[in-house]
Amino acid sequence: MRARDLAAPFPTVTLDTTALEAARLLAGNDLPGLIVLDSRGAPSTILPGTQVLRLAVPRYCQDDPALARVIDEAHADLFMRELADRTVAACLPREPRELPVVDPDATVLEIAALMARTRSPVVAVVERGRMLGAITLDALLDRMLAE
Amino acid sequence: MRARDLAAPFPTVTLDTTALEAARLLAGNDLPGLIVLDSRGAPSTILPGTQVLRLAVPRYCQDDPALARVIDEAHADLFMRELADRTVAACLPREPRELPVVDPDATVLEIAALMARTRSPVVAVVERGRMLGAITLDALLDRMLAE
Repeated sequence: MRARDLAAPFPTVTLDTTALEAARLLAGNDLPGLIVLDSRGAPSTILPGTQVLRLAVPRYCQDDPALARVIDEAHADLFMRELADRTVAACLPREPRELPVVDPDATVLEIAALMARTRSPVVAVVERGRMLGAITLDALLDRMLAE
Repeated sequence: MRARDLAAPFPTVTLDTTALEAARLLAGNDLPGLIVLDSRGAPSTILPGTQVLRLAVPRYCQDDPALARVIDEAHADLFMRELADRTVAACLPREPRELPVVDPDATVLEIAALMARTRSPVVAVVERGRMLGAITLDALLDRMLAE
């Protein structure tokens, strides 16, 4: 069992994808994040799901959660609309997270070691700059426990 | 819509739970981690899923992924058995991650602000030291996008 056998389709975005579309891709898919492709289509970083929320929450509420309490539901829903006008580029953490990458021949143990070290629950499988798919922690554990 | 309405059951472990049981809870559930309860049953920290892998991977492979490649499948599978003898206490990162906690009256915006700030995709809902359940990023996004 090698990375090529475990690689599965995984949603990708570009820096120009709207934050709303990113939020929709995340919702309902139980994903830890989205893979961000560079202009050549190669995986460059990961957009952690929690960082999409940053755009949906006004700055002053992030710094002081107590302020978030006094804003009523109707207002809170309005903030989501902001996501439609912003892009993935604005969601990325200032220090972008490393997206671990393996080649198609990587072993299960190699992938597990990489996930443990980088603390990333997703690893991209890349062959000559092209992404074949990704392996999630969940898929890897399923495989390891299937013995 | 308040935290009490969004709180859903979420798997918990204690420091004494075996790493193998933790891995099984994670697998097949697409969870970002498990909530660790203290001896009084109150949520204390989160066990990130990737950290369970640390125990399944020999130390020398974590430091040098190239070594992980030369170990063949049959051997790799053996390491999983080690998980049965180790506990959650051994999986926790040296600097345990903060488990964000909200009270049952927290608003959607308040929960979103907390997730964005702490970068945690799961928040525990606690009332007088007792955990009512947890809210995942996925559940929160579903709610926010349902408007």
